[in-house]
Amino acid sequence: MRLHPLSGLTMATVLGLAQLPAHAAPAQIKAPAELPAKASVADAIKASAPSDWRPLDPDNTLYLDIPAGRVVLELAPEFAPQHVTNIKALVAEQYYDGLAITRAQDNWVVQWGDPNEKSPKPILHAQRTLPGEFTVPMTKITNFTRLPDADGYAPQVGHSNGFPSARDPKSGTAWLTHCYATVGVGRDVGSDSGGGTELYAVIGQSPRHLDRDITVVGRVVAGMALLSTLPRGTAPMGFYDSPGKNVPIKAIRLAASVPFAQRTNLEVMRTDSAAYQAVLEAQRNRGGPWSKVAAGHIDLCNAPIPVREVAK
Amino acid sequence: MRLHPLSGLTMATVLGLAQLPAHAAPAQIKAPAELPAKASVADAIKASAPSDWRPLDPDNTLYLDIPAGRVVLELAPEFAPQHVTNIKALVAEQYYDGLAITRAQDNWVVQWGDPNEKSPKPILHAQRTLPGEFTVPMTKITNFTRLPDADGYAPQVGHSNGFPSARDPKSGTAWLTHCYATVGVGRDVGSDSGGGTELYAVIGQSPRHLDRDITVVGRVVAGMALLSTLPRGTAPMGFYDSPGKNVPIKAIRLAASVPFAQRTNLEVMRTDSAAYQAVLEAQRNRGGPWSKVAAGHIDLCNAPIPVREVAK
Repeated sequence: MRLHPLSGLTMATVLGLAQLPAHAAPAQIKAPAELPAKASVADAIKASAPSDWRPLDPDNTLYLDIPAGRVVLELAPEFAPQHVTNIKALVAEQYYDGLAITRAQDNWVVQWGDPNEKSPKPILHAQRTLPGEFTVPMTKITNFTRLPDADGYAPQVGHSNGFPSARDPKSGTAWLTHCYATVGVGRDVGSDSGGGTELYAVIGQSPRHLDRDITVVGRVVAGMALLSTLPRGTAPMGFYDSPGKNVPIKAIRLAASVPFAQRTNLEVMRTDSAAYQAVLEAQRNRGGPWSKVAAGHIDLCNAPIPVREVAK
Repeated sequence: MRLHPLSGLTMATVLGLAQLPAHAAPAQIKAPAELPAKASVADAIKASAPSDWRPLDPDNTLYLDIPAGRVVLELAPEFAPQHVTNIKALVAEQYYDGLAITRAQDNWVVQWGDPNEKSPKPILHAQRTLPGEFTVPMTKITNFTRLPDADGYAPQVGHSNGFPSARDPKSGTAWLTHCYATVGVGRDVGSDSGGGTELYAVIGQSPRHLDRDITVVGRVVAGMALLSTLPRGTAPMGFYDSPGKNVPIKAIRLAASVPFAQRTNLEVMRTDSAAYQAVLEAQRNRGGPWSKVAAGHIDLCNAPIPVREVAK
């Protein structure tokens, strides 16, 4: 499959060069020079070795099952140890089952939790709230591969075991960044007012200004389109304006607790591999003939993280 | 309406602080200091004067009418004079009417054009292809308000009459940037292979690496959710895999040609106004109590451009 987005247009066959309407000012346009061809992102993926991939850890993988299908989330316990533990406890007691997606705000987030504010679902063993884990000590993050590219929101950005992340050597802190598909913990005003009962996934332009302001617990690795295509809510902040519009959550399950035959078997490219560096470089400086300009830069949230389904 | 995204969660009522499961490592967490309250984006919008807004120019506004409703596009003739003229010529001859949205790729683009490659719809007066207008001379752009914030993809970024844009004083060029809602011209390999018969709108993370590689003609100012929620295509590159899945285009009309009573009357905040600077600053450095950290930076594609519907 060609990953190149726009090169597949085959409809631009030249049928004839009629004159421009007379009121069109002719511009001074010079055709850009051709870039030499080079490996594309798809080529870089194809050239990878089996060792460049890692299976998802079933103990840190959640399946969010909604009527339209399955969304697969990878949790990041290094960055939010207490919240990940608590979310897994909520999953274990089937807290989320029967709750709903209650919010979809365009170019922002989809959010799920308990739609019944007045009589909230009881929690048996897990916690309802926790102190925020907005950053962690840098020393806790064992596997950070830094991007050479500058970033406006953080002194250093890169990937930690497959998660887009940032760090600040001055304060000695590290954190997960808000990119497309990032999953975080909704909260009220207090930094200790969230705990995982309300979760959201980013469905638009990376809201990096939320970084360090909220606990991020992981990311969606498959099934994003099931969330991003949900009808947008018409109440303030994209909440659905009636319970009938909420999207029911059939279940959230830990992959490890799901029978093997029912698991979604995914591998993610290791972000500390040379293969991934090749992917980044293919995206950072694309070759011809379609591309005419090499960007010379990659934004953290534009760095594709390859995922593939493999036979069990 | 509060524009603040996550502060509306009222479900995080503290019901009780059960112990964390024993295997959770207690983290060293310090609650962030409170930020002083300050004007929010919503406050900055509320404080604006009527003169801080401009009506959309009906001669550069398109209505893309699909079964789900109306998408409003603003064209940017300064940046792509020939293409804008040609698209308006295509609209005038009702070229797009009866064509379709044929592609929706998650976190990428929605694209529309002629689904019938083998027997393409004839063009009466407009042109099928044009030389690309990937950049224009900087001197052609009369109203550039630069952001002080650094950008990885361009030496300078900011807004030109409401359009996110960039420029490079060294080469003396300026261009529209790919942000959420940006509208561009699909093309084949040749830089002169597009002309406006195929158009796309960005529905995900800003693909800034496409900047200067393709002709950008404007942006969607209203109705983005009608595009962003379309089912994703399952053929390569997000094309729909059968004609029955294409989304029909009822019509594309120039606002000026639509009876006044049927127009969508929108105003956009002037991006060269002090009011807009206040919006940017509210987003760049958010105040408490919800926000705990001021980002100190705004990405060009995270800069909200306020739009409002006004009585006729």
